[in-house]
Parts: sequence; C-alpha cells; structure tokens
Amino acid sequence: MNKQNLDYGKAPSAIRQLTEYGRKRKLEIGEENVFDFSIGNPNTPAPNQVKDTLINLLNEDPIKIHSYTSSPGNIDVRNSVATYLNKTYQASLDGNYIYLTCGAAAGLAIVINAIINEGDEVFLFAPYFIEYKVFTEHAKGKVVVVNHDQNLLPDFDDLKAKISAKTKLLIYNSPNNPSGVFYDEEVIKTLTGILKEKEEEYGEPIFLLSDEPYRELLYEGEKYPFITNYYEHSIVTYSFSKSLSLPGERIGYIAINPHQDVTTDLFYAICGAGRALGYIAAPSLFQHMTPHVLGLTSDLNFYKKNRDLLYQNLKEIGYEVIYPRGAFYMMVKSLEDDAYKFSEAAKEYELLLVPSDPFGVKGYVRVCYAVSEKTIINSKEAFRKLYQRYKGE
Amino acid sequence: MNKQNLDYGKAPSAIRQLTEYGRKRKLEIGEENVFDFSIGNPNTPAPNQVKDTLINLLNEDPIKIHSYTSSPGNIDVRNSVATYLNKTYQASLDGNYIYLTCGAAAGLAIVINAIINEGDEVFLFAPYFIEYKVFTEHAKGKVVVVNHDQNLLPDFDDLKAKISAKTKLLIYNSPNNPSGVFYDEEVIKTLTGILKEKEEEYGEPIFLLSDEPYRELLYEGEKYPFITNYYEHSIVTYSFSKSLSLPGERIGYIAINPHQDVTTDLFYAICGAGRALGYIAAPSLFQHMTPHVLGLTSDLNFYKKNRDLLYQNLKEIGYEVIYPRGAFYMMVKSLEDDAYKFSEAAKEYELLLVPSDPFGVKGYVRVCYAVSEKTIINSKEAFRKLYQRYKGE
Repeated sequence: MNKQNLDYGKAPSAIRQLTEYGRKRKLEIGEENVFDFSIGNPNTPAPNQVKDTLINLLNEDPIKIHSYTSSPGNIDVRNSVATYLNKTYQASLDGNYIYLTCGAAAGLAIVINAIINEGDEVFLFAPYFIEYKVFTEHAKGKVVVVNHDQNLLPDFDDLKAKISAKTKLLIYNSPNNPSGVFYDEEVIKTLTGILKEKEEEYGEPIFLLSDEPYRELLYEGEKYPFITNYYEHSIVTYSFSKSLSLPGERIGYIAINPHQDVTTDLFYAICGAGRALGYIAAPSLFQHMTPHVLGLTSDLNFYKKNRDLLYQNLKEIGYEVIYPRGAFYMMVKSLEDDAYKFSEAAKEYELLLVPSDPFGVKGYVRVCYAVSEKTIINSKEAFRKLYQRYKGE
Repeated sequence: MNKQNLDYGKAPSAIRQLTEYGRKRKLEIGEENVFDFSIGNPNTPAPNQVKDTLINLLNEDPIKIHSYTSSPGNIDVRNSVATYLNKTYQASLDGNYIYLTCGAAAGLAIVINAIINEGDEVFLFAPYFIEYKVFTEHAKGKVVVVNHDQNLLPDFDDLKAKISAKTKLLIYNSPNNPSGVFYDEEVIKTLTGILKEKEEEYGEPIFLLSDEPYRELLYEGEKYPFITNYYEHSIVTYSFSKSLSLPGERIGYIAINPHQDVTTDLFYAICGAGRALGYIAAPSLFQHMTPHVLGLTSDLNFYKKNRDLLYQNLKEIGYEVIYPRGAFYMMVKSLEDDAYKFSEAAKEYELLLVPSDPFGVKGYVRVCYAVSEKTIINSKEAFRKLYQRYKGE
C-alpha cells in the first residue's frame, strides 16, 4: 500500500470530520437545530440556462455529444473561453493554451505536477486551501508557507525573505477560501513586482498560479485583477462549481498566459501531467454546455445577503471578524488561543465552525455562509451564548 | 518544468499521431477516402434510456443533482452498482467498497497510486494498454512486461520466472485492447493459482487488477469470469465508455473484493490516492444516472457484425489475424518485421493501422473496427493492394 495515500485516506480533513459529525447530529436532534457552517457547498440553484442548454444538447446526436474530445478539450469550447475572458478582463488569452479540466482541483493537481520536480518549492499564502498542500506533496514538492498580516493578506517581507532559487511556483486564491479576503490590484502589483525581481535574480521562471473558483463571488463591485495582465509566467485555474452552482459536475479550466518565453513547453507539460494523472479530458456534455453559459451566474446576491447579515450579527455580539469581500467564508477570531478547543466549545451550542489551523493560520474559525438565511437568523442566539461563555455578560 | 510530464506531453502516443495524420488527410482527400482504423471511439449511439434518464434528472432539484457527493460517490449509487454486479456475476461486492471514478483511466491511476511505493513492480501482460505504463511511471513504480504466447495470451512460465518480492500489482485487460483476446475462466484460474502460490511464498498481498471497459463487448456468448470470485486481493476498474457509448463523460468505478485481509486499508489508500491526484468525485449528474442504466448497453451487435466482416475480408486476402473474441480491435500480422514500416506502407493506401510496438508486442498492427460498415467494405481493396505489395499476386 502506498504509505502517503493511505495516510491521506485515513485522515479525513478537519472540515470533512466536522461535516460528518454534523450529519449524525442532524439525525439526532433535527436538521433545523444544527447550525452547520462547516462546508462550502453552493446552495443557490444553477441558472435555468444550464438546464435548458443541457437538455438541448441531449437532444442532439448522442455520438457527437458524448464522444472523446482531444485531451485539452474541444477547441471551439476553448476558443469561446478565451474570447469570454479577453472581453471580460481585457486579457489576451489564446484558446490553444486553454486546457479544460474536471474541476478546479484537477487543474491545480495538473499544474503542480506539470511544473514541480522533486524538491522544488511551492509557496502558499496563509490562509490557504488545504488541498494545495496535498497536491504538492504528491508531486514531491516542498511546501513553503508565507505569513499573513493582520488583514490576512500576504506578509510581503516574509515572502521576500523566504523565496529562493528552488522556488518554482506560488499559488494564491482570491477571493479566498477560508477567509473571503480579496487581493486587489495593489496587492497583485506588489506581489508580481517582487516575483519579477526574483526572476531576474535567479534567471529562471517563477510561476504564479491564481486559483479563481470564487472569482465572480465579489460583493463590493471590485474589479478583478486578471493575473495574465500583470505577470508573464502566470496561470489561472477556474471552475464553474461556485459561479454556476455545479460543484459536482467537475468542469473548469486552466488558462495560461500565452505570451511567455516557455508557453509551448508549459502547455506540453500540462498535457503530459493531465495524461499521467489519468485525466483523459473534461466531461464532454459539460464541455459542450460551456460556450452557452459563459458569463452567467447563479443568484450570487444570495451569498452577499448572507454575508451582510452574519457579519452584522457577529459584530453586534462582539466577535472580531475579518471583513470578507468575496467567496462565502469569513474568519472569526477564536475566543481562546486554541481554535480546536474553541470549535469543540461551539459544538455544545450546535455551531459547526472549522478551526483555522489546517489552513495555515492559528486562532480563527472559518464560518461558511453558503447556508440558508434561516440558519443565520436562528444561529444568532447560539453565537451569543458561545460568546458569553468566554466573555460573560 | 517537470521533465517526465513534459516528455509525456511532447511525445503524443503513436495512436494519437496517426489519428492526427488522419484528420489532416481527410481534409485533403475527403473523409470517405481515408480508412481510419486508428482510434477506439465508440460509434454506435448510447441507448435512449441514457438521454431520457438525464433529462428526467435535469428536471429535478438542481441543487441536489449538481452537488458534491462524498468522494467515493453517492452511497445509493455505489450500492446499486454492487447489487447489479452481484446479481450478474454471482459476486459478493459491497457498495461501501465501490469508488465511483471519472472514467476507467482515473480508476487505474488511483489504484496504481494507492498500492505502489517507489520501486515496486507493476506487471503488465503484453499486449497491454499503453497508459498503464504512464500511470505506473508517474507513481514511481517499475513496469515489468510478461511475454505472450502465440495466441497473445499470457506466457505463464515467463510470469513465474519474473515475479518477485517487489511485485505488488498485476494488471490485465480482457477483452483486450489492442488484441480483442479474451481471458476465459481457465486462464483466470491459472493466473490466480500462480499468484496464490507466490503470495504464500512472499507472505505479502499481490494485487490483481482487472481493467474491464470492454467487459460487455464479448461476441461468442462467453461467461465473463469476474475476478473477485477467484482471488482475494482483486480489484476491478470499469467505465461505461464502451458499453453505453459515453467515452467523453468520464464515469466508471473501482470495485474491490470486500473479503480481503486488507480491505479497509486498501479502500483508505484508494480514497487517499483519489484525493492526492485531484479527483474530488465522479461527475454527479452521471453518478445519479447510473442506477437507471445498469445492465443496458448500446447496440453491441454493431461491433460484432464489423468484426465478422473485417475478419473474413482479411483472412480471405491472406492476412494472419488473431481471432478477436471481444472489444473492437484485432491484431493483424505485419507483412514485414518492422510494424512501423508496415504502418507507413499502409498509409500509401490510406489505411491507418497502429503498429503494435507501443503495446509491448512486435510484428503486428492494431486494427480498430469501431468504424462504419462502409469503411470496412470500402477498405477491402486497399487491404488487398497492401497485401499484394508484399506478396505479389
């Protein structure tokens, strides 16, 4: 048995453990009495066009619709993605360098395996999505975590101090899971400025991967700084899981900046990594759906309303909360040093909050607000009791 | 850049190269004038129930249908697969030890990564599906190829001589791509007999993986010997790609024999490998479809008719052909020692035939008969000319 994979399988993530606990607890005391903020499952329906498009496609020639595509995906679909991104973000992508994937996780695993040789360093910005670490370890890369500042944005001095000739890839995620923090243009310019200097110093590409499943879930009217407009060795991974509420369908893409000195080799390595990991191609029905739904979203205002209400409730009670500008998570300061213990205490009030430690940050809990409005309203009293347990009246 | 994955991406398979050539050639001289026997793309439509089921599901609650399932897949779906297999093959599988996958390739990559530690041996039986080698190399395993006899069945003396304490996994594929050869019960009994002896000798599990995407494509009324009925440390990978003509949709499963001393750990390692490779879960719409279409197939008689006609044509001309009992491939003896040169010569008659060397066998070409009947009829003259070029009148 492979030791590492046995360990990954045996030790389910803290999130999954809490969700599993929640499932059992709901059976014991009723679904409405458990305030499950543990898992990021989109809970606003896909737009109707998704269903209509899929049914239209199913009424076409089944051989055409269900056939193998080329490994990077149907070229018409890839071109439509490039056109859409170019129009939306004033980017200059090329369908020939877009690779359709079985969701964002597949894209991440493929990019990491495409770039990393054994011992190469992959930089993650705390707080980070846990699976980045798993994919990097599988590829025999070495994870280096960059510290955060008090707003959970990157500590750039720490980045500068840690970066080395072994650094081949950095991964950021904005808006962020688990924090909801957004990297605006200023952050992106600082980040890419440092990387350009370091590339010159070491004379080697340092790749920057922007993982963007929450790209459209932005609530303050911010302009999204599309990374290929700022940095040569840049790569985007995307999934329609959140924007279209299709998490189970495993459809997304890798888009690389086509204006690199190493564009061709990078794309070859991506194709090779996809092959070596067993990805034949993204599911064909959902590939064919893609051109018809680009730019559409589920009702994302649903999440904004939840954010506003939950943030207001928690602040009113007295919690410290990092203001989340996007995604559907917020980080709430733990009321004791050990966030695991705080999470355990919260369970006594039927609140399921994920300790921040596995995300590379201590002293917070992640609260996912992809829940019903009722859950937010009904949980307020529980949050208050939890607060009073620590702070008194 | 990762060197190995760059190589995999740069060096497309011989099959893909030929298919690519065919695509261009068809544009030059017309589709009907190229006899493309290069790629195994199912070309008989999915049964109507597939479409009807998918449309029914799409008319249900979109949140339910498109949500994340648990990583091994929806438990009701997994139970339905177990029930179906138990009824059809008198097996004793358990839905808790079935893992739904994004197609057979994902299943293969996951199983190999679940079992193999660096340097462990993975045995393949020549001729073998090329990607087994790629997945094994990615997992840092060592490929050992078992020779074939004159019928392209395993040379069991060679197997006995090569097997060692480092041998952790054997993979076979029946009916076989690229040969159409079928491993009947006698072959399976001989194979598992040897493995049981070797397991006793080394005191360690030797896993046997049966890769079964062509399981239902059997044309002589043979009974399929389901491996979990014969061997403790057995695993099945399956895909609906061929039986339901859904190759693009990436839906299949891993089924492990639940009566092993290491069942729990093996399944943990499978879950862990799926996680490390970036497989969140199989596409949810197609998961939900599965219970409704188990046991259905496309019109497989279409392939049988093609096989009969092509086999008869080739034999009549004078070719040596290994009689194919299943799948949609046959192996035709090359008319010169170097099958690559023979494949090149065939191109002059617009015949696209894949040299057998990448499958681990010398001196044959693979002819895929998932083509139209017309292609078989119209290609007869080209096959005759190719024959005459070597053998005269």
